[in-house]
Amino acid sequence: MKELQNRILQDGIAVNSDILKVDSFINHQVDPALMLRIGQEFADHFKDRGITKVATIESSGIAPALMTAQCMGIPLIILKKQPSRILNDNLYQTEVTSFTKGTSYELTLSSSFVDESDHVLIIDDFLANGEAATGAIRLLRKAHATVAGIGILIEKSFQPGHEKLVEQGFDVYALARIRRMDTGVIEFLS
Amino acid sequence: MKELQNRILQDGIAVNSDILKVDSFINHQVDPALMLRIGQEFADHFKDRGITKVATIESSGIAPALMTAQCMGIPLIILKKQPSRILNDNLYQTEVTSFTKGTSYELTLSSSFVDESDHVLIIDDFLANGEAATGAIRLLRKAHATVAGIGILIEKSFQPGHEKLVEQGFDVYALARIRRMDTGVIEFLS
Repeated sequence: MKELQNRILQDGIAVNSDILKVDSFINHQVDPALMLRIGQEFADHFKDRGITKVATIESSGIAPALMTAQCMGIPLIILKKQPSRILNDNLYQTEVTSFTKGTSYELTLSSSFVDESDHVLIIDDFLANGEAATGAIRLLRKAHATVAGIGILIEKSFQPGHEKLVEQGFDVYALARIRRMDTGVIEFLS
Repeated sequence: MKELQNRILQDGIAVNSDILKVDSFINHQVDPALMLRIGQEFADHFKDRGITKVATIESSGIAPALMTAQCMGIPLIILKKQPSRILNDNLYQTEVTSFTKGTSYELTLSSSFVDESDHVLIIDDFLANGEAATGAIRLLRKAHATVAGIGILIEKSFQPGHEKLVEQGFDVYALARIRRMDTGVIEFLS
């Protein structure tokens, strides 16, 4: 998506070869009009797949995921991060470890909102090693739902997340694919 | 807002005299079309106040706040919860203690995104004791911004948050004001 790539070049800050700050329009300050056009782009790409729900991981994926759900006319499910396992028959949980951040959390989904009839589109802001997306997929499988696609705003294509997900047969659609970055330098794949 | 009140009566679950579950349309599963109409309602109520930004506390206020910002054509600021104080010249922080949950966190705002020229509308899902809203106000004051109003989806009017904020001179607009609740019973003020 050319608009997002241009916005990243204009307002994103490549701190080093690994950290890209998009605080001014995605993560901390959010541009709602851009989020709506991102939602339209995902809705268009993933139309005609029988998608019944959009899911995202709290909290920085909520804005683009909400706009995607709004454009598709379907509910949004926010997968919740809990610090520790909760014993509850009505909850699915799976542990997600972020190697980048050195933290882990329990990703949580109520069994009331997703079942075997659901075809779920996962939306998230970043894809790097794929830990969060893989956790979301595991959780949706526990609910016997079908993962119908994965929509990503910004992919660090030099990290293995994209390849891992494509190898498993998922349709991964990333709006901005970064081939290489370094302090002050951002290069896209196409 | 009659639509929200009816939805609470239909899909909300009053667990006891204090806990209202709205997991199926606001907190965990989110109805984007309802969020858009809530955003339109807030945008209409707070129009002509010179509002420059919408702010919310992550994460359950993000959906209605994003739609409000979209309807008003202005940016959204997500005030971040950090477990502990971060030493950084470019950050404002304030500690918020939730007596209900028995937890506390540092509410965080980058100085890059709000300044003395800003008139900020705070949007949140719940108002009970007003701890979160008061924390957001303190944080926006550190940034020398003006708090132009407070929009709340669901207010527990039997708790002191509303009164505390109105006493300080704030315009608090709550879409559903609960006078009394108990297991299976929800009564609105009007």
